[in-house]
Amino acid sequence: MKLSEIARRLQCRVVSHEDVDIVRVAGIEEACPGDLTFVSNRKYVKHIKDTRASAIILGEKMPEVSLPSLRSSNPYLAFARALELFYQPQVPEQGIHPAAAVASDAAIGPNASIGPFAVVGAGCRLGANVVLHPHAVIYPGVVLGENVVVHSHAVIRESCVLGNRVIIQNGAVIGGDGFGFAPREDGSYYKIMQAGSVIIEDDVEIGANAAIDRAAVGNTVIGRGSKIDNLVQIGHGSRVGENCVLAAQTGLAGSSRLGRGVRAGGQVGFAGHLEVGDGATFTAQTGVPHDVPAGALMSGYPAVENSTWLRCSAAILKLPDLIRKVRELEKAVAGGRTGGDTRPEKT
Amino acid sequence: MKLSEIARRLQCRVVSHEDVDIVRVAGIEEACPGDLTFVSNRKYVKHIKDTRASAIILGEKMPEVSLPSLRSSNPYLAFARALELFYQPQVPEQGIHPAAAVASDAAIGPNASIGPFAVVGAGCRLGANVVLHPHAVIYPGVVLGENVVVHSHAVIRESCVLGNRVIIQNGAVIGGDGFGFAPREDGSYYKIMQAGSVIIEDDVEIGANAAIDRAAVGNTVIGRGSKIDNLVQIGHGSRVGENCVLAAQTGLAGSSRLGRGVRAGGQVGFAGHLEVGDGATFTAQTGVPHDVPAGALMSGYPAVENSTWLRCSAAILKLPDLIRKVRELEKAVAGGRTGGDTRPEKT
Amino acid sequence: MKLSEIARRLQCRVVSHEDVDIVRVAGIEEACPGDLTFVSNRKYVKHIKDTRASAIILGEKMPEVSLPSLRSSNPYLAFARALELFYQPQVPEQGIHPAAAVASDAAIGPNASIGPFAVVGAGCRLGANVVLHPHAVIYPGVVLGENVVVHSHAVIRESCVLGNRVIIQNGAVIGGDGFGFAPREDGSYYKIMQAGSVIIEDDVEIGANAAIDRAAVGNTVIGRGSKIDNLVQIGHGSRVGENCVLAAQTGLAGSSRLGRGVRAGGQVGFAGHLEVGDGATFTAQTGVPHDVPAGALMSGYPAVENSTWLRCSAAILKLPDLIRKVRELEKAVAGGRTGGDTRPEKT
Repeated sequence: MKLSEIARRLQCRVVSHEDVDIVRVAGIEEACPGDLTFVSNRKYVKHIKDTRASAIILGEKMPEVSLPSLRSSNPYLAFARALELFYQPQVPEQGIHPAAAVASDAAIGPNASIGPFAVVGAGCRLGANVVLHPHAVIYPGVVLGENVVVHSHAVIRESCVLGNRVIIQNGAVIGGDGFGFAPREDGSYYKIMQAGSVIIEDDVEIGANAAIDRAAVGNTVIGRGSKIDNLVQIGHGSRVGENCVLAAQTGLAGSSRLGRGVRAGGQVGFAGHLEVGDGATFTAQTGVPHDVPAGALMSGYPAVENSTWLRCSAAILKLPDLIRKVRELEKAVAGGRTGGDTRPEKT
Repeated sequence: MKLSEIARRLQCRVVSHEDVDIVRVAGIEEACPGDLTFVSNRKYVKHIKDTRASAIILGEKMPEVSLPSLRSSNPYLAFARALELFYQPQVPEQGIHPAAAVASDAAIGPNASIGPFAVVGAGCRLGANVVLHPHAVIYPGVVLGENVVVHSHAVIRESCVLGNRVIIQNGAVIGGDGFGFAPREDGSYYKIMQAGSVIIEDDVEIGANAAIDRAAVGNTVIGRGSKIDNLVQIGHGSRVGENCVLAAQTGLAGSSRLGRGVRAGGQVGFAGHLEVGDGATFTAQTGVPHDVPAGALMSGYPAVENSTWLRCSAAILKLPDLIRKVRELEKAVAGGRTGGDTRPEKT
Repeated sequence: MKLSEIARRLQCRVVSHEDVDIVRVAGIEEACPGDLTFVSNRKYVKHIKDTRASAIILGEKMPEVSLPSLRSSNPYLAFARALELFYQPQVPEQGIHPAAAVASDAAIGPNASIGPFAVVGAGCRLGANVVLHPHAVIYPGVVLGENVVVHSHAVIRESCVLGNRVIIQNGAVIGGDGFGFAPREDGSYYKIMQAGSVIIEDDVEIGANAAIDRAAVGNTVIGRGSKIDNLVQIGHGSRVGENCVLAAQTGLAGSSRLGRGVRAGGQVGFAGHLEVGDGATFTAQTGVPHDVPAGALMSGYPAVENSTWLRCSAAILKLPDLIRKVRELEKAVAGGRTGGDTRPEKT
């Protein structure tokens, strides 16, 4: 495809050599002649001069380059759309595979694709164009919206409700029992029936082997457009707002609430029963024991403002030296005080 | 159901309005007229005055409220039992589904429910009332006690032994190979056959996508009544005592031993080859590199007594200021010392 | 088996009592008469005097013991080989189970074992002696080398390539979609098609419920001989070098590169877009935000040299005391300075 044609489809500005032929999209270090590449992370600008790519997608404010380039105000989005010009995702066959186990009273929308060994329980309702890959398991009473994709070995437990265009990656468990046990006097625990459910709103994606627990009462909710990465834990009764991004291995204990647009790096932990305001951001491995106001940028364990954490983390490295200095000061002051008392008399 | 009837069944004291009608159990913020709610966590006491619930379960020592209330010495347990009055868990159909693959020599106890695509390997022995949800996989030689429930996509590997009333949530892996490799001189690793097994005692619950590894020799053991949350890792040859509670994403490396009643918040990490005494408690994200005595309350990375950690964490925030102070002290003392030497002479 | 015969097969030196009869291999604390045990971790040397084992495998430099012993320069490897003399792993039946769903155009090598409900997608190519346990799911277009073992509920997504002797433990997901989303101006996210794949080289083992994401473009690569533990996350486009060992719950964000022989303890987190040199080692829970040179031993959050971390972690415990000392110094110096000015005049 000509670069000019790509520019037209992506609504990008093209700089020089409009007629270069592009056959593939590739990362900047792997790209070969014929490839279109991109830089959206400044860390990779240094690779531009060495890339073998035939053209590059760049932000409007990136420096000039000798390579033919497409300029975009959102180069990462332009890259995403360029990919779609060159790759077709595998589309599973429509229809219900004869080796699927679909309850006789389940309502299946038009154009469904239900693979071998998929299970659809009693009373389920599936919207149009739903894709259940082989081995997807839908417990009884589940509602799936339109264009939902459930990958192999994912499980949607009883009575959960998923909106439209939700994507569940492999092995994710939606609606497993929340971790609720009442302690008894003899030290043992009494299981609290998890009588609630999980609601996943439109356009959410849940990563591989993530676990979203059902509530004891009421619902655990994942808000519209939120993206939950692999191996993330969402505790029972928690609410994740719209357009949140929770990176891999992050954990949210029970009954916590994240506002809209909250972002967490990998392995962040949120305690239970807390509130996080809209747009708060957490760097990787942050441990959050308390409420966090909207817009905050937090780091550390326990979490503090990122700027404080950066300053304190740097200061900790000076601590052994500081201890030595204080010891010397104590000697000096002890000596000095004695000196202050005695030296004048000596003179 | 009348509140008085609920009180009778839960053996709670009822305060005022015994004849209010209850139709549901709900969380304090979501509750509507007709709902019974509860407060066991002090954080939620502030919501009592605004709840729309018709009645509330409270601890004996909680403040007086205008709402009709049930008073219990264990309000969380009373809530758990109240739930059971209003909700029936889905009970899968009894019998072996024709699309299950059950080995001809497997011994299946009475009243079993084995769903479609469940697999029971050769030589397995399943107790009475076992429930295998669709896609549960039981490798050969496994023993399951009575009333065991294995959810879809959970796996019990070869020769593992589960006691009575054990619940395995979706996607949990019991008895995967322990992570054992002997380093060779060329830098490569030689896989150590994991010839041991896993024993899970009575009344244990294992969370979604948790992994309990089999031992190289001997057994990995999860003690009676312990509750293991989602995405927890138990390394090979470890022993978890009775009535332990390990919250989500906690990891226990190999050959470690937890005593009875040990509790760990989320994302706690225990190193291998260590011992933790009975009743020790670890706050979320604690990193435990060494033995811990019984009854300790630990926090931090590396773990120290919680009180020390709280004091030190607060102190770290003062560290940048402390460094500045020490710098000023050094100047003052250097100036002072000079001053100490010279000023008396000047006067 | 006589100890002398074991010594011969393991090529170990035998010390005293060559004709003792061994029937089992066991851990040092559980061992009974008739058992062969071993010590490779110095922590267990103290148990040697109390073990009931009939013989023990020890390193050449370990102290003399009264027990009959096998001496080896690599006692852990000798233990691994001794296990193989006494235990046979369960070998699943050869052949394709009638309840497996194998695409008509998939190429299956000789001696394959494909269990019930296993799925092999269109266009797959499986080498000789491949074992797919029940419920293994192989999406279309996958290539598996010889002697690959895929355990129940593991998934290999479309177009991934696995080398020879790769072992995939239960529930692992190879090739799930990378976590790539382009932010849009309205705060929502646009899913970036993950058009790349995953390459897993020879002799790799992937742990239970681990997730290795496919790349957006190009490949995520796990290098030859690397061992990845349970619940580990490998982000899209990352490259793990040869013979790396990543312990449980470790996470590697996207586009990072680990050199050869990198070792990480449990729950380590690596940020994206970073490089780690050959042989670098990370203790458990380390958080790595930046590049790390070859051979480094790193700890802490954020990661620093282990020796620095040890020194600083110890220093933090002195911090509350240090703050008190500085306060006293300030008083002393303030008093001293005043004193320096006034006392001489008083005298």
